[in-house]
Amino acid sequence: MGVIVQKFGGSCIVDAQALKNAAKIITGEYEKGNGVVAVVSAQGDTTDKLISVAREISEKPPKRELDVLMSAGEQLAVSLLAMAVSELGFPCVTLLGWQAGIITNSVFGHARIRDIDPDRIKKELSKKKIVLVAGFQGVDRKNNMTTLGRGGSDTTAVSLAAALNAEKCQIYSKIDGIYTADPLTVPEAVKLPEIDYDCMQELSFLGVKVLNPRAVELAKKYGVVIEVKSAFHSERPGTFVKEDAKMEKMLISGVTKMSNVARLSVCELNDAPGGAYGIFDILNKHDIQADIITQSTGKNGNVDVSFCVSGDDADEAAEVLKKSGNYDENNVLCDKNVAKISVVGVGMESHPGVGIAIFEALSKSDINIIMITSSELRFSVIVKKDDADKAVAAIHAQFRMY
Amino acid sequence: MGVIVQKFGGSCIVDAQALKNAAKIITGEYEKGNGVVAVVSAQGDTTDKLISVAREISEKPPKRELDVLMSAGEQLAVSLLAMAVSELGFPCVTLLGWQAGIITNSVFGHARIRDIDPDRIKKELSKKKIVLVAGFQGVDRKNNMTTLGRGGSDTTAVSLAAALNAEKCQIYSKIDGIYTADPLTVPEAVKLPEIDYDCMQELSFLGVKVLNPRAVELAKKYGVVIEVKSAFHSERPGTFVKEDAKMEKMLISGVTKMSNVARLSVCELNDAPGGAYGIFDILNKHDIQADIITQSTGKNGNVDVSFCVSGDDADEAAEVLKKSGNYDENNVLCDKNVAKISVVGVGMESHPGVGIAIFEALSKSDINIIMITSSELRFSVIVKKDDADKAVAAIHAQFRMY
Repeated sequence: MGVIVQKFGGSCIVDAQALKNAAKIITGEYEKGNGVVAVVSAQGDTTDKLISVAREISEKPPKRELDVLMSAGEQLAVSLLAMAVSELGFPCVTLLGWQAGIITNSVFGHARIRDIDPDRIKKELSKKKIVLVAGFQGVDRKNNMTTLGRGGSDTTAVSLAAALNAEKCQIYSKIDGIYTADPLTVPEAVKLPEIDYDCMQELSFLGVKVLNPRAVELAKKYGVVIEVKSAFHSERPGTFVKEDAKMEKMLISGVTKMSNVARLSVCELNDAPGGAYGIFDILNKHDIQADIITQSTGKNGNVDVSFCVSGDDADEAAEVLKKSGNYDENNVLCDKNVAKISVVGVGMESHPGVGIAIFEALSKSDINIIMITSSELRFSVIVKKDDADKAVAAIHAQFRMY
Repeated sequence: MGVIVQKFGGSCIVDAQALKNAAKIITGEYEKGNGVVAVVSAQGDTTDKLISVAREISEKPPKRELDVLMSAGEQLAVSLLAMAVSELGFPCVTLLGWQAGIITNSVFGHARIRDIDPDRIKKELSKKKIVLVAGFQGVDRKNNMTTLGRGGSDTTAVSLAAALNAEKCQIYSKIDGIYTADPLTVPEAVKLPEIDYDCMQELSFLGVKVLNPRAVELAKKYGVVIEVKSAFHSERPGTFVKEDAKMEKMLISGVTKMSNVARLSVCELNDAPGGAYGIFDILNKHDIQADIITQSTGKNGNVDVSFCVSGDDADEAAEVLKKSGNYDENNVLCDKNVAKISVVGVGMESHPGVGIAIFEALSKSDINIIMITSSELRFSVIVKKDDADKAVAAIHAQFRMY
């Protein structure tokens, strides 16, 4: 008997109707004679709602207790899904993170899986039960509950697929695959039949939400083949994420947009060693990650350092820099009215044509580029937020010509 | 350092404001130098809402999974309370049933506590932390989550008080004590300063919801003194429930009303051995409890058996009796339009005056009695639902004269 791991995102289980639909997909695999382990996220916007309830009580709730609160979301979802599966007449059992043997470190809110003890899951599978696992959550060595951070249910699913040596790991959402751009913004976007782990990880980092980048990293490490599918059109072929993906003749895998981003600048630094270090040391101490770091050339003894952070971290980043006392408050600037547009593909830096194509597309569309960065797998530009969708469409069209 | 166990009912933590109020009560005891363990129920009507969500998916959800769903209610409440306590600047930690060492049997939905392993709680107390425990839930020996049934958080609190050898066990709700009748119906009702375990248990069984009867039973077994107090007027003295309560000169402790009740009758049974056994054997197999069982005298070879069940069980009871094939469907009657009025006190049967006083009160108020039962601790009558409040007031007034 082969084992199939399925993961259902919040949009696939948002209400009774959706839960029944998910139950049909699960029991369909079970009827083929497979052992089925289904991992679920919290329903719809449950997680956001719980966070806002917490904020009513405390601006900075203790992270350990926030994890207790948040993990209730998946607990509710998994028990309701069990009722839907049971209603179809199939044997099933739910397991929460601590019951499923998901052992993590103790970094509340962003815990990492350290070990999987699959004994209980295997025992339930051997009793021919469908096993439903609450995603996103685990337990540390001291029996405290932890959560894995946003998108953590993908990580749960891939980790279980690895631990159980599963045949397949299907990620169900309302999206039926990985596209070359968001089909809602760019109707010409094409679904990729296959994509390799590295490109998928870049796409995930750069705004494709259907799959969490850490989950892709784990899948690569353990050779887990992921299939991204729509729960509402499960008959449609999805996108396979795997090592030896046939990337076809296409140079690029996708064009992404990330709107929840801000550009910060620290101006008029002395052009002396340690200037950038001082800034990023402060940010690091507050657990704020920066990228697209640029430094202006110092002509008159001063330099400006600019970088991007997540929109969630923007205010805090500006505040801690100002409060550090190292910089004049007027020299710390924060612009949230920006978006990051990225092109992902293999061998970007070795094809100089990529940058030119992007610049040409944006120039023809009269879009100003604020910042630029590139790596072997991606090419990103920062533009004004209002220009973002136009930029994605223009770049996508430009690459269609290749 | 003494340990105080406090329990906060759903009405005391219904929103952010209420949670902050509860946090003040908790930290007030902590500031006096006590070790504080606070047990919480789910907020407001959370439990009812969760049940109705489950019903959208399945008429009869698996009991194990219903427990997973329901226990999320206390999990949400306890984490939010922790945030409120933490916001006041006090160290605290939450423990769910399985973390707090609440070991139960495996009767999902109505589990009984088999053992308490207080190691983790003691460890956290020794670190000077306020310990917040999710009530109503536990874990069986196989690591499945269980719930203790309605009012289970009271049982959690009393069990913890016993296991920790606590100085006090305070039960906070919106009610400031135990009254001789519901003060909303009977303005003349008097708050009891003290009441003994047996009378309190009868009152709880017969409709006084502020304290769960199983919790009172446990408190008696382990000699735990319970203090019933209002969370919104915590300065007011409450009611102590204890063994050697000074019951004052009052004959009765209280008059109660229970509206969620139904009267069933099975008519025209043969007047032969086994008639009543047949009925209650069927009910027992469906886990339905009956009381106030009466049997009419058989004159012409037939007898009628009547009894009361909880309003929740009424339809199922009628259905299983009809479907048993043992009785003509027209002979199984169900009347939900009734209420149970009870008088609780010590030595009821040894005071014949009690029954007479009740009959006199009801007669003068023109209220018809449908059924009667009595024991050493209580005297109950079934009346029409519309007559219930009038009956409570009349009986309460009658006993004020004694």
